[in-house]
Amino acid sequence: MAQNIKDFSRLCIHTVTTKPWNLGLAASRYAAAGVSGITVWRQALDGYALNEARRIINNSGLRAVSLCRGGFFPAVNRKEREKAIEDNLDAIDAAAAIGAPLVILVCGSSPYQSLETSRGQILEGIIRILPYAEQCGIRMAIEPLHPMYADSRSAINTLKQANDMCDKIDSDYVGVAIDVYHLWWDDELEREIRRSGKNNKIFAFHVSDWLSPTQDMLNDRGLMGDGCIPIRRIRGWVEAAGFDGFHEVEIFSTKHWNRNQDEFLQDILKAYWENV
Amino acid sequence: MAQNIKDFSRLCIHTVTTKPWNLGLAASRYAAAGVSGITVWRQALDGYALNEARRIINNSGLRAVSLCRGGFFPAVNRKEREKAIEDNLDAIDAAAAIGAPLVILVCGSSPYQSLETSRGQILEGIIRILPYAEQCGIRMAIEPLHPMYADSRSAINTLKQANDMCDKIDSDYVGVAIDVYHLWWDDELEREIRRSGKNNKIFAFHVSDWLSPTQDMLNDRGLMGDGCIPIRRIRGWVEAAGFDGFHEVEIFSTKHWNRNQDEFLQDILKAYWENV
Repeated sequence: MAQNIKDFSRLCIHTVTTKPWNLGLAASRYAAAGVSGITVWRQALDGYALNEARRIINNSGLRAVSLCRGGFFPAVNRKEREKAIEDNLDAIDAAAAIGAPLVILVCGSSPYQSLETSRGQILEGIIRILPYAEQCGIRMAIEPLHPMYADSRSAINTLKQANDMCDKIDSDYVGVAIDVYHLWWDDELEREIRRSGKNNKIFAFHVSDWLSPTQDMLNDRGLMGDGCIPIRRIRGWVEAAGFDGFHEVEIFSTKHWNRNQDEFLQDILKAYWENV
Repeated sequence: MAQNIKDFSRLCIHTVTTKPWNLGLAASRYAAAGVSGITVWRQALDGYALNEARRIINNSGLRAVSLCRGGFFPAVNRKEREKAIEDNLDAIDAAAAIGAPLVILVCGSSPYQSLETSRGQILEGIIRILPYAEQCGIRMAIEPLHPMYADSRSAINTLKQANDMCDKIDSDYVGVAIDVYHLWWDDELEREIRRSGKNNKIFAFHVSDWLSPTQDMLNDRGLMGDGCIPIRRIRGWVEAAGFDGFHEVEIFSTKHWNRNQDEFLQDILKAYWENV
């Protein structure tokens, strides 16, 4: 089991976690609370020039950990797939512009074609954007999503599949994002984390909790400790596999978004020490 | 790919699919429509003496395919686990009483303990009730449930896990129920179906569809063809693995429950030929 955490030097928060705050507010509040990193969702960049966003992050003292999110490669229609490529190149540009070294890929899926076809299009898409990512010095992390999103958000639903895809792509610029919310149920998780680690592929580690019961498939994630995910145990596996990066808090929660976000942030800090 | 179906000789409907109908109504309507089998949910037995239920089914001419459901073995508390054992013995009694040769096991899970602990309790529970099931001549099918139910309804979430558990138990009376809704996303499904078949473990095959988007984690299943599951392809795998039993329609859907059930039944018949 991993040791208790006693500081915030590896704590990163995703802007979507405190969705009511704009980028400026999120950056200043996170920094004031002692948080060390920020992962920027693209919606949080709306209304900001990219150099302005970079300045806000730099001035806050936070590390820009990653940009969320690229991906969504699969589509029945070729033109839509081309649009997705464009959008991913934009994501790489945005990451470079704000100083984030990593783009998280929510790979996408389509209910109108087979999962195999979608996986082929994901592979194709990543290979298409890879030269540009390398040129910009931006790494990309394939994030396997929970199987309940297999119809629409990701045809990559286990860490094994993400590792397999990394093997096929075989680039130092492509790794995986391990999110406990998506993967906690999988009895092959520990083994696949070891495999990711051995290949130096663990690019990101995301935490939140699975509430029981869960009321909504998208926006009812829990604060760490409020659900049933053995978060610390999984952190232990990730760290045993050599990961020493940020612990990123990524909570989509209508309930928490409707709260006072300063109070919510204090709860995150407490939950981070107690349950991550 | 499996051949088109041209009759209803292997069509079975779960009473929960037409939840507004009581057992008598369901049996008579299914039979009148040409359906061949009925899987009886225990709620459908409420208000009936078991011998009365048996008579209703016999008189309808339907085959009693299975009883849904036993299981729910895991609990933190020992007394609750003992209650679950009792309940499973009751389920075996009920199956025998109504003439159903099979009990479907929704194995259960608990958010208050690890999945490994829950899986251990499931194994223990099945082994506990197995002698009685054998004595009554009732088989039991472990039904792996979608990973979105791992916190509460089943710690068995892939066909691989169900097959592994069958290997451990090693009884002719314990096999698996393959439900496309729970398993369609898994890229190891075809391989594991072959494995189930080789061991003569495919005891049941359930169909419905995954709607995209899905509005509710429990009660928003689709009619076959209304979602994204490659049902016929999976039926092909199941039949190639030697299964020649019923195709059981199991749809939990608030939307369809709110419709005229006779019209819904007609839609099921149509969807069965077109999309199973």
